[in-house]
Amino acid sequence: MIESKIISSVQNPLVKKVLALKEKSRERKKTGLFVVEGRREIELAQKGGYKLNTLLYCEEILGDFNTLKISDKQSIELVQISKSVYEKLAYRKTTEGILAIAKSKSHSLDAIHFKNKNPLILVAEAPEKPGNIGALLRTADAAAVDAVLIANPKSDVYNPNIIRSSVGGLFTNQIGMGSTEEIVHFLKKKKVKIYCAALTASKKYMDCNFKSSSAIVVGTEALGLSELWLQNSDQNIIIPMEGEIDSMNVSVSAAILIFEAKRQRVQ
Amino acid sequence: MIESKIISSVQNPLVKKVLALKEKSRERKKTGLFVVEGRREIELAQKGGYKLNTLLYCEEILGDFNTLKISDKQSIELVQISKSVYEKLAYRKTTEGILAIAKSKSHSLDAIHFKNKNPLILVAEAPEKPGNIGALLRTADAAAVDAVLIANPKSDVYNPNIIRSSVGGLFTNQIGMGSTEEIVHFLKKKKVKIYCAALTASKKYMDCNFKSSSAIVVGTEALGLSELWLQNSDQNIIIPMEGEIDSMNVSVSAAILIFEAKRQRVQ
Repeated sequence: MIESKIISSVQNPLVKKVLALKEKSRERKKTGLFVVEGRREIELAQKGGYKLNTLLYCEEILGDFNTLKISDKQSIELVQISKSVYEKLAYRKTTEGILAIAKSKSHSLDAIHFKNKNPLILVAEAPEKPGNIGALLRTADAAAVDAVLIANPKSDVYNPNIIRSSVGGLFTNQIGMGSTEEIVHFLKKKKVKIYCAALTASKKYMDCNFKSSSAIVVGTEALGLSELWLQNSDQNIIIPMEGEIDSMNVSVSAAILIFEAKRQRVQ
Repeated sequence: MIESKIISSVQNPLVKKVLALKEKSRERKKTGLFVVEGRREIELAQKGGYKLNTLLYCEEILGDFNTLKISDKQSIELVQISKSVYEKLAYRKTTEGILAIAKSKSHSLDAIHFKNKNPLILVAEAPEKPGNIGALLRTADAAAVDAVLIANPKSDVYNPNIIRSSVGGLFTNQIGMGSTEEIVHFLKKKKVKIYCAALTASKKYMDCNFKSSSAIVVGTEALGLSELWLQNSDQNIIIPMEGEIDSMNVSVSAAILIFEAKRQRVQ
């Protein structure tokens, strides 16, 4: 706890900084900082090894600050904000009453360490919709995969809509980012089998054995996976669809594939 | 083709009617009509047995009207609209150039007929977010379930956000609606086993046999399923989660369960 101020003006420089970090990817890149909102998300961020620089809270909404499960409070700048300032900064209006400015991580592939001898990895190529990326991270958390790798990312992962839709999954997963080429190289070096989900594949996913080191790779709904993935795939796989619509939501497809791998691994 | 007009004023009564049908559930209920947008969605609606009353199209955006794969054109009122009127009515701006006013269905349980001797049914209790309902319908289409039943519905299914997020799944599924009590009664009468997804369950979903007639029942993320479902369940089931977050998106959970049932049924 370095200091404690109360801010009630939306013209305050710190308030403007928070808004810029929420709205502008460029600002996040330049400063290496991002904004987390909500009690649980902030707790998960710290638990996931993210350094919190500043906590902004509205006591009227949050209630007792000391119920917040965070450590190292003495090294975090604490700032009280008025209700109107909180409402200006928050997307959920009066719900939680707390925001944090945190330091982003690098997400280099070199930093990835697998928990399991035969890791299970989720790879998404060029995912676009923040809601889909968030849903993938949430599913990856539930399955406790070894890593989520984002190939040819279209944006930084600290977009507020990704954080929100991941309900904290952004912080609980090990996330690596790189070009498709780099990630293919990384997986091959680690002897991880590459399973590419493709509508053109003939091998059904449930006929594959995912017990050895496996990466499940999904593309976008609109474009699928790039040629580079399909060429470097150990097996292209398909989820048989029997309806009138010829595609599934990418986060739904990924969940079906990842949980089939999990099922095989416990049986 | 009863008549052909061109409308270029947003004050036109038909334009106002379309807007009211999109925005107001009450208006949809009163008239028994709803609005579908997009070429593919309109084609799927007609294929799914929905009667199209009126087609509103902007030739400049749609291109050749005759490429539309719909039948019975002579019984449908055709109305040309200007680009500015289309943009006022559409959520996707300039993309498709076509909307329809269609007649809603009743969704009574009595009308449900199973395709399979051992049907597979998806039940959702009181789903709230249109995006989740749409995603459930899309998954249900891919799995070609026998029916999707909505217990204690919070809204009508003709909400434009449900139609959009289902990408047509609203029209390709057999949908039944009723109170939880009515649906429990319906399933028991049809000798369908009830599997309730519950975070408090100890039986893992993959240890169940879904080959006989099965209904997979999911609740909301916030509240789960009501006591009435849990009491009438043949088996409460859980998807084992190993992460830090204690819930999954309802459409993701449903997809994992439904596709496990599908997997068992082909093997």
